[in-house]
Amino acid sequence: MRDPIEDAVLPAIRPSEEEQKHIDQVVGLILKAARNLGGAEPMVVGSVARGTFIHGDRDLDIFLLFDPTLSREALEEEGLTLARSIAGALATGFHEKYAEHPYINATIDGLDVDLVPCFRVESAAAIRSAVDRTPFHTRYIEARIPPLVDDVLLMKQFAKSGGVYGSDLMTQGFSGYLCELLILSYGGFSAMLAAAAAWKPGTLIDPEGHQAKDFSDPLIVIDPVDPCRNVAASLSLDRMFEFVELARGYRESPSRSFFSVPDSPVLSREDLAAVLTAKGTFLYTITLETPPYIPDVIVPQLRRSLESVKGLLERNGFSVNHADCAMSDACCILLFELDTRQVPCSRRHSGPPLWNQANAQRFFEKYRSGSSPAILCGPYIENGRYIVEVERRYTQAADLLRSPDVLTVGLGKHVRQSMEKNWDLCEGSGCWSPASAPIISRFFERRSPLARIRRKGSAGEDRLI
Amino acid sequence: MRDPIEDAVLPAIRPSEEEQKHIDQVVGLILKAARNLGGAEPMVVGSVARGTFIHGDRDLDIFLLFDPTLSREALEEEGLTLARSIAGALATGFHEKYAEHPYINATIDGLDVDLVPCFRVESAAAIRSAVDRTPFHTRYIEARIPPLVDDVLLMKQFAKSGGVYGSDLMTQGFSGYLCELLILSYGGFSAMLAAAAAWKPGTLIDPEGHQAKDFSDPLIVIDPVDPCRNVAASLSLDRMFEFVELARGYRESPSRSFFSVPDSPVLSREDLAAVLTAKGTFLYTITLETPPYIPDVIVPQLRRSLESVKGLLERNGFSVNHADCAMSDACCILLFELDTRQVPCSRRHSGPPLWNQANAQRFFEKYRSGSSPAILCGPYIENGRYIVEVERRYTQAADLLRSPDVLTVGLGKHVRQSMEKNWDLCEGSGCWSPASAPIISRFFERRSPLARIRRKGSAGEDRLI
Repeated sequence: MRDPIEDAVLPAIRPSEEEQKHIDQVVGLILKAARNLGGAEPMVVGSVARGTFIHGDRDLDIFLLFDPTLSREALEEEGLTLARSIAGALATGFHEKYAEHPYINATIDGLDVDLVPCFRVESAAAIRSAVDRTPFHTRYIEARIPPLVDDVLLMKQFAKSGGVYGSDLMTQGFSGYLCELLILSYGGFSAMLAAAAAWKPGTLIDPEGHQAKDFSDPLIVIDPVDPCRNVAASLSLDRMFEFVELARGYRESPSRSFFSVPDSPVLSREDLAAVLTAKGTFLYTITLETPPYIPDVIVPQLRRSLESVKGLLERNGFSVNHADCAMSDACCILLFELDTRQVPCSRRHSGPPLWNQANAQRFFEKYRSGSSPAILCGPYIENGRYIVEVERRYTQAADLLRSPDVLTVGLGKHVRQSMEKNWDLCEGSGCWSPASAPIISRFFERRSPLARIRRKGSAGEDRLI
Repeated sequence: MRDPIEDAVLPAIRPSEEEQKHIDQVVGLILKAARNLGGAEPMVVGSVARGTFIHGDRDLDIFLLFDPTLSREALEEEGLTLARSIAGALATGFHEKYAEHPYINATIDGLDVDLVPCFRVESAAAIRSAVDRTPFHTRYIEARIPPLVDDVLLMKQFAKSGGVYGSDLMTQGFSGYLCELLILSYGGFSAMLAAAAAWKPGTLIDPEGHQAKDFSDPLIVIDPVDPCRNVAASLSLDRMFEFVELARGYRESPSRSFFSVPDSPVLSREDLAAVLTAKGTFLYTITLETPPYIPDVIVPQLRRSLESVKGLLERNGFSVNHADCAMSDACCILLFELDTRQVPCSRRHSGPPLWNQANAQRFFEKYRSGSSPAILCGPYIENGRYIVEVERRYTQAADLLRSPDVLTVGLGKHVRQSMEKNWDLCEGSGCWSPASAPIISRFFERRSPLARIRRKGSAGEDRLI
């Protein structure tokens, strides 16, 4: 017995008949073209192959499986040639993209199609690159998922609406494959939510009971086709527990709103000014040109930069309420909401206890010598330790965030290179621009998902803060 | 061989011949009067009895030793009667004072004289009140100190100049008896400084090797007349290590300035404003009427109140750079130097991790119910925990320090009673008044003793910050 809410949701999220027919038709064309051209075995992978895609999300992944005796270089060359020939015959447009290997992204009869060369290895243990694993995933899921397709659709829609769907490094949420494995393991959507409501960090799911490696990730789902891989490796602690929160909220008070992506009102400049006035906090954005590398390279550097600049702010006395980063093709933004924009000239610095005579003497000599930073007070003794109050270098957060000191912290190679050229610092409602507005809106909105979801569950109301 | 500096200092601090003659004369009169009146054996105690008083500091302590078979009530009655009769015969003025017992404070021939009744017990182990111990101290020191009198004078003057002399609860420094015991134990002023330069917390000195109790004080000096008493019990960690600092400074670079009480310039209102501007900090004073009890009762309450109000400020987001208290007959002052006078309306409050389901639910319910304090943001999830940003009650330090919330923290009975009537809050240079100026000056000056002392050691210069 499925919940009536879920029964009502399903017709809206299942692939439509025309949609499916159209896809089957395009798939047929591609497979035929591939077989005619020869050299590799074409295979439909991903959610379209399993019928587990949400109505409207019909991105097509066609893998081209080559003989594993080929060299990597030969695979890349022959693979791209074949993919280009297929696209050339069928696509209205296509271009080369790059993950671990190059592949072709094409538009064929209105569908977004990836044509991905890989090795046709004997077993998942013999893979030569990550993409070689995908056909095994497809075969594993295809063989088991048919009775649970609706449950997978509910799970995916539920995760999407809650903002936790997608395993890219920026989202750090649930991949489609992870959704399918969770539904398979728990035997359905309701059972999965019941289990998730009680998840703890370190929860382990091992569908094939063949785990061969230890993991310290928040959620560990051993890949059924690879005993040494955690399918949930890219899921962050926060996305995991946002999902737990959603599961608890839905079980407590089920509603359709858990399956609809909420409207995210974009703040106007005046809204932003009002939010900051209401909270009494201070917003700063550092904007830099996005380095010309793929997100897998840049996003981790961006997160590291965020933590480093946050540390720089805290060391200089500026308490950070919240920080986040965002990335578009053109630019990357680091956002900092501070509790204060100004700190006193004076900073307390605690030295060693006096009974540690050698260190105490060294400390004293350092501050007696009258070098920088200038002493405003002390050294004096408090709780048996030397204390000095020294002059701060920066009393305004904006001065610090504009200073070259920003370049002295751990930023990651490409982010640093971009910032060595330039960065823009904005402050308060001056951070707002048509381009930054959606990012700033998400920055504040990201912090009220629970209130929003639970409210929906009861009152259906939706507001930003 | 004494240091030439010390040789030069001694003539100025030794009691003069006329001074000693005058004291001997007054002592003679009092002893004669006491013996004529009868009922108790009079005894000169304290530094005057031992010749270890600094030129000018000739306060006279005369104890009246009564038969220990008397009751406490009878002692108090007969003791006061005798003391009054002596004072009546000799003093230009006198009044009753109260420590553990009542006693008489009189002015006799220009000297300040305490006439203190006590029991003439057989041994220090048999004392019935703290004052009964004093005659034993006098006998112990008198018998041993003659060869070291100059060393004691140097020690006392050194401690006085450094601001660490006096065992009252406000000073928490070195008592005269403690100075004498340290000189006796180490065998002289230079040896004592050499030892003190290497003191650690918990340093133990037991002149008679008869310790019968454990102590956790910073410095432990077992009373030669009482194996269960630490003579240094009231010495604070900071006064102890300020003395250590002085000892190190003098040994490194001896100078007469270590024996002269420094000029303490009193800040003008304009000076205070300039100091606060230079440091960028914010000064607040809470002034209350001094409760009508002895300092032994009030000072610990005042210190407790200081810590409690400091905690209140920190809990409300106001970072305290430094805090101190002071007391006069008329009023008590709590001083707070803050890093900020204003905090954002919004306060982050971190809840339980979500995997602690019962606590998480309780937290969520609390904030969902929309009760006070108002939620400005969240609850949202960070590092697996619920975070809410709630409205602060006070965004201005002055509002908090004027509010009744001050009365909700641990203040001590009598301080609370005084504050329930009223307290004054002042801010910035508005804290300055002719009455508060010396206290405010000490508040800032107390924090540069090392710089001052070491500077004196080299350049002889003297300035406040």
